Amino acid sequence: MRLHEIARHLHANAPETDPEITGIASLDTAGRQDLSFVTDARRAPEAARCPAAALLVGEDFPALPAGGPALLRVPSPALAVAAAVSLLRPPWRPEPGVDPSARIHPSARLGVRCHVGAYAVIGADCVLGDDVVLHPHVVLYPNVRAGNRLLAHAHAVIREGTQLGDDVILQPGVVLGGDGFGFATDAQHHHVKIPQVGHVVIGDQVEIQANSCVDRASLEATVIGRGTKVDNLTQIGHNCRLGEDVLICAQVGLAGSTNIEDQALLAGQVGVAGHCTVGRGAIITAQSGTHGDLAAGKMFSGSPAFEHRQWLRATAVFARLGDLQRELRELRAALATRASG
Amino acid sequence: MRLHEIARHLHANAPETDPEITGIASLDTAGRQDLSFVTDARRAPEAARCPAAALLVGEDFPALPAGGPALLRVPSPALAVAAAVSLLRPPWRPEPGVDPSARIHPSARLGVRCHVGAYAVIGADCVLGDDVVLHPHVVLYPNVRAGNRLLAHAHAVIREGTQLGDDVILQPGVVLGGDGFGFATDAQHHHVKIPQVGHVVIGDQVEIQANSCVDRASLEATVIGRGTKVDNLTQIGHNCRLGEDVLICAQVGLAGSTNIEDQALLAGQVGVAGHCTVGRGAIITAQSGTHGDLAAGKMFSGSPAFEHRQWLRATAVFARLGDLQRELRELRAALATRASG
Amino acid sequence: MRLHEIARHLHANAPETDPEITGIASLDTAGRQDLSFVTDARRAPEAARCPAAALLVGEDFPALPAGGPALLRVPSPALAVAAAVSLLRPPWRPEPGVDPSARIHPSARLGVRCHVGAYAVIGADCVLGDDVVLHPHVVLYPNVRAGNRLLAHAHAVIREGTQLGDDVILQPGVVLGGDGFGFATDAQHHHVKIPQVGHVVIGDQVEIQANSCVDRASLEATVIGRGTKVDNLTQIGHNCRLGEDVLICAQVGLAGSTNIEDQALLAGQVGVAGHCTVGRGAIITAQSGTHGDLAAGKMFSGSPAFEHRQWLRATAVFARLGDLQRELRELRAALATRASG
Repeated sequence: MRLHEIARHLHANAPETDPEITGIASLDTAGRQDLSFVTDARRAPEAARCPAAALLVGEDFPALPAGGPALLRVPSPALAVAAAVSLLRPPWRPEPGVDPSARIHPSARLGVRCHVGAYAVIGADCVLGDDVVLHPHVVLYPNVRAGNRLLAHAHAVIREGTQLGDDVILQPGVVLGGDGFGFATDAQHHHVKIPQVGHVVIGDQVEIQANSCVDRASLEATVIGRGTKVDNLTQIGHNCRLGEDVLICAQVGLAGSTNIEDQALLAGQVGVAGHCTVGRGAIITAQSGTHGDLAAGKMFSGSPAFEHRQWLRATAVFARLGDLQRELRELRAALATRASG
Repeated sequence: MRLHEIARHLHANAPETDPEITGIASLDTAGRQDLSFVTDARRAPEAARCPAAALLVGEDFPALPAGGPALLRVPSPALAVAAAVSLLRPPWRPEPGVDPSARIHPSARLGVRCHVGAYAVIGADCVLGDDVVLHPHVVLYPNVRAGNRLLAHAHAVIREGTQLGDDVILQPGVVLGGDGFGFATDAQHHHVKIPQVGHVVIGDQVEIQANSCVDRASLEATVIGRGTKVDNLTQIGHNCRLGEDVLICAQVGLAGSTNIEDQALLAGQVGVAGHCTVGRGAIITAQSGTHGDLAAGKMFSGSPAFEHRQWLRATAVFARLGDLQRELRELRAALATRASG
Repeated sequence: MRLHEIARHLHANAPETDPEITGIASLDTAGRQDLSFVTDARRAPEAARCPAAALLVGEDFPALPAGGPALLRVPSPALAVAAAVSLLRPPWRPEPGVDPSARIHPSARLGVRCHVGAYAVIGADCVLGDDVVLHPHVVLYPNVRAGNRLLAHAHAVIREGTQLGDDVILQPGVVLGGDGFGFATDAQHHHVKIPQVGHVVIGDQVEIQANSCVDRASLEATVIGRGTKVDNLTQIGHNCRLGEDVLICAQVGLAGSTNIEDQALLAGQVGVAGHCTVGRGAIITAQSGTHGDLAAGKMFSGSPAFEHRQWLRATAVFARLGDLQRELRELRAALATRASG
């Protein structure tokens, strides 16, 4: 594809040259026919030496010496990279068609142009939209509803009654609607199962990544709002409510009835205890945990978590806590000497 | 179902009215034909306004004004809820029958009234009890033994030689009997695999939830005792021994040869290093970790974990560690001034 | 097998007796016809009482009284145990042969003596070496390349374009090549997917255990070096590079573009933020985390992690932080009294 055509697609300025572009690659590995990208102005010297035909850069990126790559200036290089990859290296996806080995219940209904892979199972009363892709071995229990363009990778499991919006993506091994961890303990310390008969509701444009789990509600619904993205190996307990455009990084654990408001960001391995609310746009840094509510728009760290800047100070002191104790002892000794002196 | 009949099933008092009950729902969402429940006496005003036909409450819950929901008083509302859900909204389960696509080895033996779903695989010499349910794509390697009423959800994998008691529940994606992480490192720093040839033994009434892993022992058995419940995405290493009625919350990790005694509770994301013992009834709070033994009956927190109350004090001071350091410096400066004064 | 024959296989001294050995078991459970092993000289009294026919021990293990087990002395008992288990209790593996239900694309090529289990799926243009074992329900997307002796357990998923060396082992539920967590956020706070079109490259003799995930790179390759071993439920983000002979314990999370050098060891539940380097042979203890580089050859602890010995001192003081605060207050009060006195 010609560079001018790419520039037009990305709403970038028209560059002075118009070479043929065959791929997109990072600054370190790009070749002469590649488009590449750079956001950090400190990497301008590397950018100048990069053999790439052109670079996606921000509007304030410094000019490069003549002979270097052409620059495509865009307001958001990250968004432009997303568009350029779709253009230059569209991900593989299977053609429409239903594999003869797919087991589709006679009462299930599928839209047009769907792909159903080998050994996929679609239970009774499922209703799926158009352009759905189910890779091999996806299992839909009865009564699953999904919108258009559901993309479910191999071995994803969607249990009975789950509802999904449009443009949902499930990476391999995702489990939607597994039973929540709900037990009542009797006088003999036996844990009696509370049947988990609620369901899971997933909004439009949600992506849930590999081997993550979203438990069905005990009675009503576990809800994930539109546009929320959930990384690998994440646990979302029963009755949780996640807002829109939330980012949940890998291995996060949300106990039951957690409430995460819109645009919050939970970094890797964060834990939130049950019945807590994390406010709109709050950021929780990696490995932090909370058993209380966290305010909107602020950054939190630590386990238990508190305000991030205060935590930075605390951890700096923590590392020299051995010294602090020694200093305190010396002071006390000095004072005792003085007193007896 | 009539309210009097429900009351009889739950061993509650007979209420003054006898409406038809069609469902069970939480206090916030219950409608006029629902049974609901409340345990916290502080929610009595909400309970009085709830349109539900009746409420399950504890024996000491305050009386509500006339016109509110009828009250069913029970010794344990949580246990009564478990029973009421089973009564009013029994979870879906498939009918007995073997799907023609299930691959059952001729040497395997199944009890009566079993359900075997599409593409399930049952290996050589497996022996399963009565009323077993294997959902689609469950894989049993050879020589698995299971009691009555095993319920294994889609994509559960049970490797060779695993033994399961009665009434075991496996949520989707569970892996029983994967190889333990056992290697011997040679002089060239290469890690040589120690073949993992032990197995896994699971007691009666154990539930293991989605995508959790229980590794086979290196030589003998990894054991999970009767009535123990394990939440999602949990790692139970080779040679671990879990007692009875233990609760293991989501994303807990137990390294090899961990010993968890009866009725212990490990909250979410807890880690226990290898060869440690967690005593009977001990509680470890979320995100804590230990590389030593923990005493029976006590509550522990922190990483490394120590006594919970002491940890509460320590974390309170931790949050103001920056202030503490400043105060120490001021004291020292004051003392130095005094000395030189 | 006769003890002398075992000794010859393990390059041990020839023992004085030559009994028939039928199994291998730990010191606690070994019977009269078993080989057992012990490395800790403090367990010599137990070893002397053990009914085992023979014990694998290190070269400096104390001699036992007559009548006890024969001793096979070897330079590395751990390596000898690995060899002895292979000899005496070789793990079960299925015979070569392709199950008629396996779905192999006509363009795929397999070497000789492969086993392909029930319902396994091998996509277009896959190329596999000799002696490969794919257990039931393994799914290979198109264009996967694997060397000889790949052993993939049930429900492992290998997405398109993944490359694997020789002697790779995948435990059940492993996901290789799932999409990385890459999004560009627009002005409306919507997270726009950056298509993940790179791939995964796995070296020879790598083992990845149950339900772990290795994400495909955004554009180039996520790389795991020769001989590296990865425990259960581990997250390896897009664009990570792991060196050779690395040990990654259970539930570790590596954010995108992490660089782990040869022979490093990350204990359970460790987290590493993106774009960090963990130096050659570094050790990170359980539950620690880092958002900065860590030096080669050292041991680190804490979240955020710093030098292990310093952390040991800090955590010792942390546990008595309540006392420390009280002492500081007392000192200050004493000084104030003195000043006013």
